[in-house]
Amino acid sequence: MLLYDNALSGNCYKVRLLASHLGLELERRELDVVDRSNRAEVLGGLNPALRVPVLVLDDGRALAESNAILYYLADGTEYFPSEGFERAQVVQWLMFEQYSHEPNVATPRFWLHFGIEVDPSVLAERQRLGGLALAALDEHLAGRVFLVGDRYSIADISLYAYTHVADEGGFDIGQYASIRAWLGRVKERPGYVPITG
Amino acid sequence: MLLYDNALSGNCYKVRLLASHLGLELERRELDVVDRSNRAEVLGGLNPALRVPVLVLDDGRALAESNAILYYLADGTEYFPSEGFERAQVVQWLMFEQYSHEPNVATPRFWLHFGIEVDPSVLAERQRLGGLALAALDEHLAGRVFLVGDRYSIADISLYAYTHVADEGGFDIGQYASIRAWLGRVKERPGYVPITG
Repeated sequence: MLLYDNALSGNCYKVRLLASHLGLELERRELDVVDRSNRAEVLGGLNPALRVPVLVLDDGRALAESNAILYYLADGTEYFPSEGFERAQVVQWLMFEQYSHEPNVATPRFWLHFGIEVDPSVLAERQRLGGLALAALDEHLAGRVFLVGDRYSIADISLYAYTHVADEGGFDIGQYASIRAWLGRVKERPGYVPITG
Repeated sequence: MLLYDNALSGNCYKVRLLASHLGLELERRELDVVDRSNRAEVLGGLNPALRVPVLVLDDGRALAESNAILYYLADGTEYFPSEGFERAQVVQWLMFEQYSHEPNVATPRFWLHFGIEVDPSVLAERQRLGGLALAALDEHLAGRVFLVGDRYSIADISLYAYTHVADEGGFDIGQYASIRAWLGRVKERPGYVPITG
């Protein structure tokens, strides 16, 4: 399988992490996340949103959206539950990740890492919302081992991707004790690879 | 089942529309979407993000995130595919909806409807991104009957919710011929109910 990838992107890292857990080989094709001028040329026809990651199967069919790729690879494995309500709970966290967490935790990291100039009030508002998302995550993890059914799943993989590098977006993860303990548990899973891997 | 609901919210409408297709009875409890001061009190413990909709099952378990509720109710019915790749394609569109479409198509409608003051440049930027999302949707629908596998699914229900009222957010749907035809097809589905229903 071919992954349109970016080494720094947490969304791409989600796919690499799950593939490593599953022992799947991925051919990686790196795309620039700042200069996007070739996106329509490279990803047109593969992803209507022109974003990475995109997974291209060996038969040429393409799948976009990081959490949909996780769902595709994980369904039927130990990384996605078999029971209906738990399945939906995993999807709930995947939706939370893309709506409440990623735009507010990942985007400040992106701006700060690449030195992209934004209005300070825009950055501060994203960080405020990112803090709310992290607090909600921390509260849910209190007394839990993993996000759903106390079993490691793609919900954890999805939320881990940008939470474990949230400090690069100006967040202080040190204040979230339940998140910190959970980050440690994810790192201990067999097949774990770092975002830089 | 009990739905924490709002009559104007497209996210809540998604659940009401699918429930109508499936012939499911929902008890509706209306929450204010402007004055959110009672959210923690009412939704705390039910949804970490404190947003509507939230579905509470008869046994008391709660599910949040509109698209996760759709997934829960549709899996195993004709509104969600049985084949693995098509299932993931539906999830891809659910993710697109919450990341690229809803924040940029629904939010301007929300601001304009309730007369919420925002910086004109902020509104314009959302409308620009919303236009990109609508154009991507329109391009995908060209030559297709429905979003995935030419069968009506929760991908269509999810994208329909805010697309069919996009004019209230300052978008001109008239310019998207494939979207217009698809909106008409959704409206003809058995069990269809309007957002005001």
